[in-house]
Amino acid sequence: MSDHVRGPVGPFEPPYYAVVFSSVRTAGDHDYAATAARMDELVADVPGFLGTDSAGTPGGLGITVSYFRDEEAVAAWRSNVEHRAAQRRGRADWYETYVLHVAKVERSHGFERH
Amino acid sequence: MSDHVRGPVGPFEPPYYAVVFSSVRTAGDHDYAATAARMDELVADVPGFLGTDSAGTPGGLGITVSYFRDEEAVAAWRSNVEHRAAQRRGRADWYETYVLHVAKVERSHGFERH
Repeated sequence: MSDHVRGPVGPFEPPYYAVVFSSVRTAGDHDYAATAARMDELVADVPGFLGTDSAGTPGGLGITVSYFRDEEAVAAWRSNVEHRAAQRRGRADWYETYVLHVAKVERSHGFERH
Repeated sequence: MSDHVRGPVGPFEPPYYAVVFSSVRTAGDHDYAATAARMDELVADVPGFLGTDSAGTPGGLGITVSYFRDEEAVAAWRSNVEHRAAQRRGRADWYETYVLHVAKVERSHGFERH
């Protein structure tokens, strides 16, 4: 949730995967910010990682959509050891609630004003 | 992007569809807010519409994820006459850039703190 405009990532050539993570945080940081920054670094090293868009509401709903080339890339990220530890911290400390959707993108298109 | 906390929608029973719309707006309103409110009303009437989560960054990236029961519901919304007119206004007036991803959700889960 930086405050400079960063355009949306994609579109990519289908099929690819979108992992939608929608969440509401608990109060306080509890090492969240540092871990989130570390996860951003780590996921970028996953072969087949395509990019991430992230946004939030003032009321605390966060939406992060990460794109991956294929199921294998999604699985590699899901099972990454540091990421698994972060997932446990998420349930223990950081999130009131979240929903994760793993989806295969069948169709995409982009528009850019000229 | 209201400022009260509204938890994420879902999870739903797979398979279902997620339509991810990530965008950066142009300056000014140009009837955007009124049309967006009308679209929120209209989509709720589409048979098979499951829900929407929406968030934005201070820098102007918006992410809206709408969930539908099946491809037919996605197609019904895409081809809705008022929605098509809004899509044209979007390209003419409202968006600097956007990316749309239509994806079939294969797996989902939710977490809620007790």
